[in-house]
Amino acid sequence: MADDLTIVAENACFGGRHLRVKHRAATVACDMTFAVYLPPAAAVEGARVPVLYWLSGLTCTDENFMQKAGALRLAAELGLAIVAPDTSPRGPDVPGDPDGAWDFGHGAGFYVDATEEPYATHYRMHDYVVHELPAVVEANFPVSDKRSVAGHSMGGHGALVCALRNPGRYRSVSAFAPIVNPSAVPWGEKAFSRYLGPDRSTWRAWDACALLEMATERLPLLVDQGEADSFLGKQLQPDALRTAAEAAGHPLTLRMQPGYDHSYFFIATFIDDHLRHAAAALEA
Amino acid sequence: MADDLTIVAENACFGGRHLRVKHRAATVACDMTFAVYLPPAAAVEGARVPVLYWLSGLTCTDENFMQKAGALRLAAELGLAIVAPDTSPRGPDVPGDPDGAWDFGHGAGFYVDATEEPYATHYRMHDYVVHELPAVVEANFPVSDKRSVAGHSMGGHGALVCALRNPGRYRSVSAFAPIVNPSAVPWGEKAFSRYLGPDRSTWRAWDACALLEMATERLPLLVDQGEADSFLGKQLQPDALRTAAEAAGHPLTLRMQPGYDHSYFFIATFIDDHLRHAAAALEA
Repeated sequence: MADDLTIVAENACFGGRHLRVKHRAATVACDMTFAVYLPPAAAVEGARVPVLYWLSGLTCTDENFMQKAGALRLAAELGLAIVAPDTSPRGPDVPGDPDGAWDFGHGAGFYVDATEEPYATHYRMHDYVVHELPAVVEANFPVSDKRSVAGHSMGGHGALVCALRNPGRYRSVSAFAPIVNPSAVPWGEKAFSRYLGPDRSTWRAWDACALLEMATERLPLLVDQGEADSFLGKQLQPDALRTAAEAAGHPLTLRMQPGYDHSYFFIATFIDDHLRHAAAALEA
Repeated sequence: MADDLTIVAENACFGGRHLRVKHRAATVACDMTFAVYLPPAAAVEGARVPVLYWLSGLTCTDENFMQKAGALRLAAELGLAIVAPDTSPRGPDVPGDPDGAWDFGHGAGFYVDATEEPYATHYRMHDYVVHELPAVVEANFPVSDKRSVAGHSMGGHGALVCALRNPGRYRSVSAFAPIVNPSAVPWGEKAFSRYLGPDRSTWRAWDACALLEMATERLPLLVDQGEADSFLGKQLQPDALRTAAEAAGHPLTLRMQPGYDHSYFFIATFIDDHLRHAAAALEA
């Protein structure tokens, strides 16, 4: 392991290892902590297991998914590593929301590369998640460059955008309750206007619905959305994704789940389907 | 549902329902919040499903197990309800640790019935868990009086003591990393000296190792203990349980798990075995 990585926690789990790793991240110019789950198959001499990158939602850290999703049982069985980054740059030098709100700044990086001050130096979460983090993970752990991406809410937006912006980089993508059209909903408008500035034409490069129009790769999208999700109408609007996918001829499986809300109880219920979706594409 | 129960949260999960319920508890003379998971089978007209009572460890509330154990997937499949109470009485009128420590008072009721002031009024968690809570649950939810009990750490102690003190009340019992001999370890000595007073002879009625000597029912004990648990030698001492069980001729399956620590990553790894252990006894 490289000198600039520090293991801050380690737990045995389902025969594999869950690690929390701190490192100096160049893209976001601060220390970052990510979690990695290595399945038992990764302990075999010479093994290189494929990786699902999981992007969490607003207010989360690297910890929420690993502790609450119930994903590690099947990941162990499938021989799939999971990497969960933090949801923003953090630290005393990293500017947050000026009003201390939870939906912007710390815990709310929106997986974009900010262009506006004072955010442009640190808020480069797309670059971090798509390039620096996989490079660090692949250099230091027994994982391969076969990658999938998935996420929840803000992280569902992140997963869709990472896949749509980077053809060939991910073998599969899926999302739980993603913000599919951030340019047109309050969470996204707040974040994009500050990270990317007032020119809305620049926002299209970070909006899954807009990116579908331009996509050159037709990577199938799997999306689960709870019908009892309190953010459904105002922030999530899965119908916009359906319309955009239909217009573009892009394959989308959108599953509306009656009774389910926005919580990890919802994610836990359907996470196995997303792991199998990734594993099938990764040939894990 | 009775007028004095309030649903404070509800989430669909694995086709069933997770509820957080607040009620006025007479035994502990304060408002208490417990969680209940009702599997899909409980929604069938006229159904009465069996219940696993889960007792959590120090600092926990009703939430930790439900969010972190990954138990609800198999509970749904087995048709098993799970009830998770809080770990102590709480509130501004409930005395806590005089020094604000985390191992006594709020979040640390130790599942005993206190006899010493100022704790005797509220700290009656054994009575609450064994009698009042099941009565409330069985009167208000579609569950039966077939009960199992399990727990972790302080709650593993609680599970063993609840089963050993109340022959016939539970169909099965199991524990993760239980405090098996609280009379002889720092956590237990601190708690028992304050809740039960200085006469150590009274402590025996709340100590699994001592209770094994007096047991009239030979309910098999299932215990998982991580070998990398940082509390193993000082607080948990599973060998004391092994010795006591052997001396009493009491059936014990003690599984030492190499590499596993005290966390919910450990619990998640082996919880399915405990659910199946309970379900087999409950004929769930």
